Amino acid sequence: MAGHNEPFRYMAVQQKVLDMIEAGTLSPGDKIPSLRRMSAAMRVSLSTVNQAYVLLEEQGIIQAKPKSGYFVSPERPSLAPCIKQHAPPTPPTPVTRGEMIRMVLREVGRTDNLPLGVANANDELLPIHQMTRIMGKILRENPIQATSYAPIQGWPELRSAVARHIMDSGTACTPDDIIITSGALEALNIGLRAVTRPGDNVLIQSPTYYCFLQLLEHLGLRAIEIPSCPTCGVCPSDVEKALTKFDITAAIFTPNYNNPDGGLTPDDAKSAVVRIMAERGVPLLEDEIYGDLHFTDDRPRSFKSFDETGNVLSCSSFSKSICPGYRIGWIIPGKRYSKCLELKATINVSSASPSQLAVAGYLHSGQHVRHLRRLRAALSKQMTTMSEHIYRYFPKNTKLTRPQGGVVLWVELDQSIDSIEFFRKAAEYNIGVAPGVVFSTHDQYNNFIRLSFGYPWSDAMADGIATLGKLATEMQSA
Amino acid sequence: MAGHNEPFRYMAVQQKVLDMIEAGTLSPGDKIPSLRRMSAAMRVSLSTVNQAYVLLEEQGIIQAKPKSGYFVSPERPSLAPCIKQHAPPTPPTPVTRGEMIRMVLREVGRTDNLPLGVANANDELLPIHQMTRIMGKILRENPIQATSYAPIQGWPELRSAVARHIMDSGTACTPDDIIITSGALEALNIGLRAVTRPGDNVLIQSPTYYCFLQLLEHLGLRAIEIPSCPTCGVCPSDVEKALTKFDITAAIFTPNYNNPDGGLTPDDAKSAVVRIMAERGVPLLEDEIYGDLHFTDDRPRSFKSFDETGNVLSCSSFSKSICPGYRIGWIIPGKRYSKCLELKATINVSSASPSQLAVAGYLHSGQHVRHLRRLRAALSKQMTTMSEHIYRYFPKNTKLTRPQGGVVLWVELDQSIDSIEFFRKAAEYNIGVAPGVVFSTHDQYNNFIRLSFGYPWSDAMADGIATLGKLATEMQSA
Repeated sequence: MAGHNEPFRYMAVQQKVLDMIEAGTLSPGDKIPSLRRMSAAMRVSLSTVNQAYVLLEEQGIIQAKPKSGYFVSPERPSLAPCIKQHAPPTPPTPVTRGEMIRMVLREVGRTDNLPLGVANANDELLPIHQMTRIMGKILRENPIQATSYAPIQGWPELRSAVARHIMDSGTACTPDDIIITSGALEALNIGLRAVTRPGDNVLIQSPTYYCFLQLLEHLGLRAIEIPSCPTCGVCPSDVEKALTKFDITAAIFTPNYNNPDGGLTPDDAKSAVVRIMAERGVPLLEDEIYGDLHFTDDRPRSFKSFDETGNVLSCSSFSKSICPGYRIGWIIPGKRYSKCLELKATINVSSASPSQLAVAGYLHSGQHVRHLRRLRAALSKQMTTMSEHIYRYFPKNTKLTRPQGGVVLWVELDQSIDSIEFFRKAAEYNIGVAPGVVFSTHDQYNNFIRLSFGYPWSDAMADGIATLGKLATEMQSA
Repeated sequence: MAGHNEPFRYMAVQQKVLDMIEAGTLSPGDKIPSLRRMSAAMRVSLSTVNQAYVLLEEQGIIQAKPKSGYFVSPERPSLAPCIKQHAPPTPPTPVTRGEMIRMVLREVGRTDNLPLGVANANDELLPIHQMTRIMGKILRENPIQATSYAPIQGWPELRSAVARHIMDSGTACTPDDIIITSGALEALNIGLRAVTRPGDNVLIQSPTYYCFLQLLEHLGLRAIEIPSCPTCGVCPSDVEKALTKFDITAAIFTPNYNNPDGGLTPDDAKSAVVRIMAERGVPLLEDEIYGDLHFTDDRPRSFKSFDETGNVLSCSSFSKSICPGYRIGWIIPGKRYSKCLELKATINVSSASPSQLAVAGYLHSGQHVRHLRRLRAALSKQMTTMSEHIYRYFPKNTKLTRPQGGVVLWVELDQSIDSIEFFRKAAEYNIGVAPGVVFSTHDQYNNFIRLSFGYPWSDAMADGIATLGKLATEMQSA
């Protein structure tokens, strides 16, 4: 570090500690190198190391223990493991976030923005060249099939491949149980239209993906919100209370890595929710789109895997993990199969044949197993890196989730910060972020933002996070 | 004809005359070869020729003129040029044809059926290999774009190509006026949802495409029907009367070659309908999907080409003319653009990128101009051939349309024939036909069937028509 500019020496020390944490060399609770050892290793003065350690302590990343030295904080500043105090369900509310969501979507879609606002994995992480090769092969081998209308429910080879693919989520179904859709949102659109009518109440978790709110708005449905927890997702007793208190026609939950809070509903809770909904005869729609992106060894199970009565409508797609632009998703509608099939027919007859056949070919090739393994490892690392940078550059009272999967972090800023204003200021720096306020029908999450870690780490990303941290610091009232 | 079996000699003569009519060698009003000339030419007895001519006369195909011989009938038995007596609009009716339509769709979709029930051009007529080559090239050159989400409104290159393509229909619009959809039905779904709410009344022509009825049913809309004419389509005064009499929220019309009756609304009538709808502020949705398939020299204009106020929502696709399985259509929503864009976002985010880029590339290559010319010529010929075979094999009182474009014939059987029973019996012979009853919300067209001439002529087609003719003869009450 001899060549390092004087004023930045302490930053190099900070970076070193953060790198060691990020790499797992240091874990929460571990003792970090003493002042003397670090001073020797980095060839800086003791006071420079001290300066760095004091700053790291202020950021909550390390803690001093009297007479023992510094340790990696056992509790990183994060959203409480369970933020919910089992808040009661909100009363039914017409969804009117539309204008705000549209404004956010317009900004987030800007391609000149640093894409921290978009909840998907970047091109560089997707198997683009394999997909392209397979599509070319499929077209050469089956030109007529690829040009013809697919059956409404989708080509059999794709439905077989999906049935095999979802066995990892514990879901045992046959190709005939599956309807291919143009992405997961179309699946949810179909599923929701199959079981509701305008004016009906739909149970959602809060925060929830803003596109669900848009969907409810356009279908004239009212939202009832129960708390989502960044750690344990949806709580069965909250579901039960809401069903007792209100006339509810359907629920939409994201059991695995809820967007935006990353909440993972544990298996026993999933089983209980499925049972409760079935007992009441209220259809349960699940968005299972992030389940494949687990950072843990085992893939979490789906609601569908606990469904014994056909009451779960399971929706998912390959848009987050393989090929967003191909628009291939599916719904497993259980006992609402016929109605969903009709709706698919009236929406667009069937999904694009070239896309269907290419995805079927890709899954059949088995390449996706290795691809998903690599993708998960990359996302997990990117999540850690981004988290560390947030700890480094954001005000000390910033809290964030530690998701076990998916592509987004949910960040709680100081109470004084308005996320829409933050979103607007970030946009002036060409940085896309999703403001918390669009994830609920009520005025909450005003001081939250959602950041995507779906893009490979780069200097631009680091600069972006530093800029956002600076913004948060400036906006925070003293 | 020496080797021809004795009992079929007269049929060979019939066939000869029909072939000459079909080929245009003989036109309506022309004198056909005398008994003596035909007898010599075909090496059959005079009485055999006479037997054939008498049968042809009974079928209404030729007429005897005293002392002059036989002439091709100037008036072929066809649906009256204008079947409508300007019937009043029907009262608003909830659409409940669903179950019947589903039953029909299941049967029609059977791939082991002779596909006379499916309203599209067969693979053999589509530019499958050109599309496949272009898709391969696009994927090699733009793998990232092809794998990425398209913008909600679609890739700019495709919107530009569509804007150029529809200039032939007199429609001048910019790429920014267009939203790409997954086929024309999705476009209509979006357009209809943008301007109606459940319970609203929608004006349709009768007969109308059964998928529109399904769409109305699923959106909880009521249908008001005004007559469609096989020759002159929708009549402006009928539209005006209906708008005066009922509270109508929107209309869906197919101005060019209405499915099933082939009705072509003349340009002045189109202009008047557009004006009337605009004056009343009632949105006009058009399905312009068959306009490219004109058998005349000039392409008919669209409703949109007369739209000065942005009140027309124009829907179309390439599914009938280029590549059904790619699922590429569009809507030009006029002043309902924003709402339609939002709906597209909540239905499936955007349409498949590989399909969009391949179609853009194909249109850009200019190959579609020659392709469409060939396709139109083929369809026109197939229409004539099928018509002649129907005249030959169906009972004499059978009437059929003479469409100037599109892919279907609308056939009126004897009053005593129930089209659902006919449909069922045809299915027993593995022949798909669409029964008339599914083209209205009222009990009409019970004795009509729709036959597609989108498939290249073959012995199987000829046998199929002969079988259907035999069925019609058997079912007809004496």
